[in-house]
Amino acid sequence: MECKIVFQPEGKRGSFPKGTTILEAAREVGVDIEAICGGKLVCGKCMVVIEQGADNLSPMVEDEKRLLEKRLAKKSIKENYRLACVTKFYGDLVVYVPEESRGGEQVILKEGVELPVSIDPVVKKYYVELSKPSLKDDLGDFERLMKVLKEDYGFENLSIDYEALKKMPDVFREADWKVTVSIWNDREIIDVEAGFSVEDSYGLAIDIGTTTVVGYLTNLRDGKVVAVDSMMNPQVSFGEDVMSRITYAMQYEDGLEKLNQKIIEGINQIIKNVCEKAKIKPEQISEVTIVGNTGMHHIFLKINPKHIAIAPYIPALHASIDIKARDLGLNIAKGGYVHVLPIEAGWVGADNVAVLIATEPYKQDEMWLIIDIGTNGEIVLGNKERLISCSAAAGPALEGAHIKFGMRAATGAIERIRINPETFEPRYKTIGNTKPRGICGSGIIDIASELYRVGIVKKNGRFNLNIDTERVREVNGIPEYVIAWKDETAIGQDITITQQDVREIQLAKGAMCAGAQILMQEIGVKSVDRVIIAGAFGNYIDKISALIIGLVPEVSVDKIESVGNAAGVGARIALISKEKREEANKIARKVEHIKLAVHPRFEKEFSMAMYFPHMDRKRYPRHEEILKLRGEEVV
Amino acid sequence: MECKIVFQPEGKRGSFPKGTTILEAAREVGVDIEAICGGKLVCGKCMVVIEQGADNLSPMVEDEKRLLEKRLAKKSIKENYRLACVTKFYGDLVVYVPEESRGGEQVILKEGVELPVSIDPVVKKYYVELSKPSLKDDLGDFERLMKVLKEDYGFENLSIDYEALKKMPDVFREADWKVTVSIWNDREIIDVEAGFSVEDSYGLAIDIGTTTVVGYLTNLRDGKVVAVDSMMNPQVSFGEDVMSRITYAMQYEDGLEKLNQKIIEGINQIIKNVCEKAKIKPEQISEVTIVGNTGMHHIFLKINPKHIAIAPYIPALHASIDIKARDLGLNIAKGGYVHVLPIEAGWVGADNVAVLIATEPYKQDEMWLIIDIGTNGEIVLGNKERLISCSAAAGPALEGAHIKFGMRAATGAIERIRINPETFEPRYKTIGNTKPRGICGSGIIDIASELYRVGIVKKNGRFNLNIDTERVREVNGIPEYVIAWKDETAIGQDITITQQDVREIQLAKGAMCAGAQILMQEIGVKSVDRVIIAGAFGNYIDKISALIIGLVPEVSVDKIESVGNAAGVGARIALISKEKREEANKIARKVEHIKLAVHPRFEKEFSMAMYFPHMDRKRYPRHEEILKLRGEEVV
Repeated sequence: MECKIVFQPEGKRGSFPKGTTILEAAREVGVDIEAICGGKLVCGKCMVVIEQGADNLSPMVEDEKRLLEKRLAKKSIKENYRLACVTKFYGDLVVYVPEESRGGEQVILKEGVELPVSIDPVVKKYYVELSKPSLKDDLGDFERLMKVLKEDYGFENLSIDYEALKKMPDVFREADWKVTVSIWNDREIIDVEAGFSVEDSYGLAIDIGTTTVVGYLTNLRDGKVVAVDSMMNPQVSFGEDVMSRITYAMQYEDGLEKLNQKIIEGINQIIKNVCEKAKIKPEQISEVTIVGNTGMHHIFLKINPKHIAIAPYIPALHASIDIKARDLGLNIAKGGYVHVLPIEAGWVGADNVAVLIATEPYKQDEMWLIIDIGTNGEIVLGNKERLISCSAAAGPALEGAHIKFGMRAATGAIERIRINPETFEPRYKTIGNTKPRGICGSGIIDIASELYRVGIVKKNGRFNLNIDTERVREVNGIPEYVIAWKDETAIGQDITITQQDVREIQLAKGAMCAGAQILMQEIGVKSVDRVIIAGAFGNYIDKISALIIGLVPEVSVDKIESVGNAAGVGARIALISKEKREEANKIARKVEHIKLAVHPRFEKEFSMAMYFPHMDRKRYPRHEEILKLRGEEVV
Repeated sequence: MECKIVFQPEGKRGSFPKGTTILEAAREVGVDIEAICGGKLVCGKCMVVIEQGADNLSPMVEDEKRLLEKRLAKKSIKENYRLACVTKFYGDLVVYVPEESRGGEQVILKEGVELPVSIDPVVKKYYVELSKPSLKDDLGDFERLMKVLKEDYGFENLSIDYEALKKMPDVFREADWKVTVSIWNDREIIDVEAGFSVEDSYGLAIDIGTTTVVGYLTNLRDGKVVAVDSMMNPQVSFGEDVMSRITYAMQYEDGLEKLNQKIIEGINQIIKNVCEKAKIKPEQISEVTIVGNTGMHHIFLKINPKHIAIAPYIPALHASIDIKARDLGLNIAKGGYVHVLPIEAGWVGADNVAVLIATEPYKQDEMWLIIDIGTNGEIVLGNKERLISCSAAAGPALEGAHIKFGMRAATGAIERIRINPETFEPRYKTIGNTKPRGICGSGIIDIASELYRVGIVKKNGRFNLNIDTERVREVNGIPEYVIAWKDETAIGQDITITQQDVREIQLAKGAMCAGAQILMQEIGVKSVDRVIIAGAFGNYIDKISALIIGLVPEVSVDKIESVGNAAGVGARIALISKEKREEANKIARKVEHIKLAVHPRFEKEFSMAMYFPHMDRKRYPRHEEILKLRGEEVV
C-alpha cells in the first residue's frame, strides 16, 4: 500500500510507504530540496506547497508553524505551505517546490565576467544536535560529534583542528549540545559554533596586485559578495615594481620580513574593513583565497623571492597550497585555512590562473588572447588545444602611477575623455561627476588614444607643437596638453598630460603589445578570434581606445571584452567551487610559458610596439577604419 | 644469458641479466639490504662480502672505495667487500650479507619490559639528489623534489609543511641540490635538511606523570634511547594531585593558561637537557609522543579540564591526535608533530594505553592484572577476550611525596631496607651507596612491608609501642621508627618513618588493592595468572614486599613482574612503530571502564584493603608462606 508523490515543476515522481516524509521522498527521486539544518526543524528552508492531497498529511507541529510564519512573513499567499522535513504523507500527493527551496544553486558572476558557477565551497557548515552525555553514555565530545556527523551526513575519519578542539567542550555545553560545525575539504573540522549558523558562512577572496590589493568578502552559501575593500599595496614604500621589492628583500637581512609584514598587515586591515561593512566578526571568515603574481605570491608566503629574480627563475612551488591562516598571521577563524592558488611559471602567477578560471580559454575552439593589465602584466594566448603565456613588465602607468596627474579610480578621477579633432577642446567624465582631481587608468588610455587620433601626438609618441591651441604648450621645455584648466579642477592647478606621461604609456602598451605579438608568432597565428582585457584599474577600459593605440591586436570591436579585475573574480570562484579549484591546478600545469626577457625577438618587437598603433602597419591593416569608428562622441 | 646469484646466509637465489646491480637483485629476490641513501653512494650501508665470483663484477669506483674504507676502518679483514648499490655482476655470484647491512631491524626494548618491536617510525628520512634547474628545466623546487621522491621512493601526493616550504629554496641551493627530506606518516614533508642526514633522526617520548615528567630522546632509526631527562612536574606548585590542579584551573580565569604554560616550559627544559646530553639541536627532533592521565592530557592540550572532573566525567576526545609542535609551543623541528596517545575513559588515560602497548595483555590467554602505580594509579585486568580498567586516586605517597623523609629516586635515597625480626635493627641500601638523605618509592614499600613483618606495625597499620627497641619511639605523641640515626645520614637528623607516613602508605595501597579487587569481582575471577607492576618511581619495587603488604593479589612470586615506567616505554614504542600506534587506538576503544568513585562497593573494599595485607584474610590464603619467603636477606 504505497502512496504516489509528484514533485512539480520538474514532474519527478515515485511511490513510497505511508509515513514517509516529503524530504525523504524528494531525496529518493532526485529532487533537490534545501534542508541545511539536516531536518532538525531549525532552518525552515525546505518549505513546499501542497498542490493536491493536503488531507493526507501528518498534522502541523508547533515548530513547523513558527518557522513557516517566519519565512512566509512577506508573502501574500500563505496557504498550503509545509516543511518537507517533518511532513509525512499517508496518501497520494502533488507537491510544488518553490525556487527558493531548491538546492544545488548556481551563481552567475557578473563582474565583467559572466560565468555560471555551481556553488560547492571547500568549507561547508553542518548543523547537528548531539545527545547529552551521561554516566551510561560517556563517549568523549569529539567521538560524540563524529557519531552524529556520520549518522546525519555520512562523514567518517574527519580530523579536528587543534583550535577547534580546544573550544569544543565549552561550546557544546554552552550551546546545550546544538552546534554548527565547519568542515574543510570533507576532511577536517575547523570550527565549532553554538547554535544554528549554517547561513553565516563567509570567505574572503584577496587579489594581491603589485600596486593595488583588493578583498571580496563572500557568502559561501550563495556566492554573493557581501563587502569589498581595496587599498594601495602597502609594500609600495619599498619599491613600486616587483623587482625593486625583491632587490630590497635581497639587500637587507630583514627585508623579506618587513615586506611580508606589510602585506599581512594590509590584508588584516582589509579583513577589519570588510567585516565592519558587513557587520560580521573576523572569526566568522572560514577561508581566504589568495591570488597574485609570482613575486607577490612568494613575499606573501615569506618565501625568499631571490631565486625567482635570477636565472633560471625558479619558484619555490607551482602547486596550490593550503596553510593555516594563523601560521601566516591572518586574523580569521582560528582554525581557518588560506588557499593560495597555483602559479604557472616565471612571473605568470596565481593571479593569471585566476583570470583563466574566470574566463575559461581552455574550453574554447576559438583562439583567445587574454591580456591582464597590471604593473606586471600577463598575457595568455590559445584555446582548448594549447595555451601559451608570458609576462610583461608594463610598469604601473596604466594604474595611474608614474603619470603626473595619475590617480587610482576614486571620486574625481577622469575616467573617460574625448578631444574635438577641430577645436582640440576636450570633454571628460569624472567618477562621481565631481570636479576633476586627476586621471585614472581608463582615462589614461583614452587620453593617449585621443591625443594620437587628433594629431597632437605623433605615431612615435612625440608631441606636435605646431597644433594651434593654447592647450598644447611647453613648460620648462617639456610639451604637455592641458585637459582641465585650474579653475575647473578640484586641486587648484591645471591637469595636464605631459610628453613624459605619453612615454610611460608607450612603454606600458609596448610591453603588453610585444608580448602578444610574440605569443602569436609562437603559436603561428596572424590574428586572434577574441581579445579579453582584464585589469584591476577601477573602471573598464574603452575598447576602441585600446584598439587605436594598439594595446591589443586588431579584431572587431565586438570581439573585445573588457572584464575588469578577472583575477579577483577567479579568487572568488576558487572560494565557492571545489571543482574550479581543481581546474586551476590542472590549467596551471598545462599552460606553456615563454620568457620574454630572454626571448631573442623581444627587444625588436618592443621597440616596434611603442609606436601608435605599431611600427609595422601591416599588422594593423584596419587602423583607418577603427579611427573613423570614434566620432566625436558625447561623453 | 642470465647470471645466477645466491645471497647468504639466507640462501635466497635468482637469475638476472648481465649488468644487474647486487642491490637490484637483492630487492627482486626479497633479501633486505640497507641502502638508506637510495643507492646514491652516500651512506655505504649496503656493504656485502663477495664469497664467489669476484671476477665477474664491475670495477670499483672512487666513491665506493672511499665509503668502504670508512666503514671497514675497524675491521681486520677488508678483502672482498663491495657496495651492493653500485656493483654490477656479469657472471655467477655468491654474496654474503653481514648482519650490519641487513634491513628490517627489530629492537628489543629492555627497560623492565622485554618486547620486540619492528622499527617503522611515523617520521622517516629520505636522501635525494635533485637535478639542477636551468632555463630549459624550470620546474619549481617543490615539484622538482616530488619528481625525485616519486622516482626514487614511490611517493605521490605529498603535502609540504609551511615551515619546510619556507626554508626549502635556500636549503636546496646551499646543499647543491643534495638534501635529506623528513616525511611524516607517508603524507607530509615536514623538514628539508642539507646533505645526507638520514641517520640523525630523532624523536622524543614524554611521560607526563602527575608528580614526575620523564623524557626519552630516541634515535628513530634504531629505537635506542640516546638521552633521558626527568623532573618534578612543575605544575606541583598548583596542587599535588590532578583534582586540585583542575580546581585551580576552574577557580582562576588564567588558571588553565598557567598550568599549561608550566608543563610546556617543563617539556621545553627537558628538550634542552636531552639535546645537550646527546649533543644535537632541538630542531633535529622530528616528533614528540605524549602520554599522561586524562587530567595531564587535557591540561597539556590546554583543553578545559572542568568537564572531566564533574559528572558525567566526559573527556574532550578519546582518540589520539597529531598537532604541530609549534601550535603547542614545543621547541622541536619547526614542521614537527606531537602525537598524543589516545585515552581510554575517565581518568584512565594515554599513560595507561602506553602501558598496555608495552605489555600487551590483549594478546594473552592468561588473566593478567596490570597495576600502574602513580599519584593517579591505573589498574587493568583481562586477557585477549576482554579488558577492564579503573583508576584509583592513590596519592603521591609511593612516589615519595607526603612522606616525612620521602624523596625522588636520586643519590642518597634509601631504595631497599630489611629489618632484623629479633633485634629490630635495619639494614638498607641507598642509591649511589652514599649516606642516606631520605626514602624513595621502592624503599617506602619495603619499610611498610618490614615494619609489618617484624610486628612493629600491626595489621591495622598502628605502631606497636611495646616493641623493645629504642628505634621505636614517640615524638610529640606520634609514634615513629628510626631507620637511620642522624650521625649516619647526610642530612644531620634522624631519618624516620612515622605513624602518619604509614597511614599515607595504607591509603595508597588500599586504593590500588581495592581497585584490583573490584575488577576481579567484575570479571568474575578469584585469582589472576600474572601481575605486572608498573610505575615511574625510579627503581623497581620489591615483589615480595608488594605481596606482603597486599598491594597486589596473591600469586607466585615468579608470576609478578616489576617493569618500571611502562608508560614511558609505551611512549617510546609509539615513536618507532606505526603499527603499535594503530594498536593503541584499537585498544583504547576496546578497554571497558569502571568508575570506582561511583561504584557501590568501593568504600567497603577500600576500608578492608587498608589492612596489611587485607582485612578479609581469605583473599590472601598463602600470606604466612610469603612472610617466610623473606628471611633476613643481606641487602
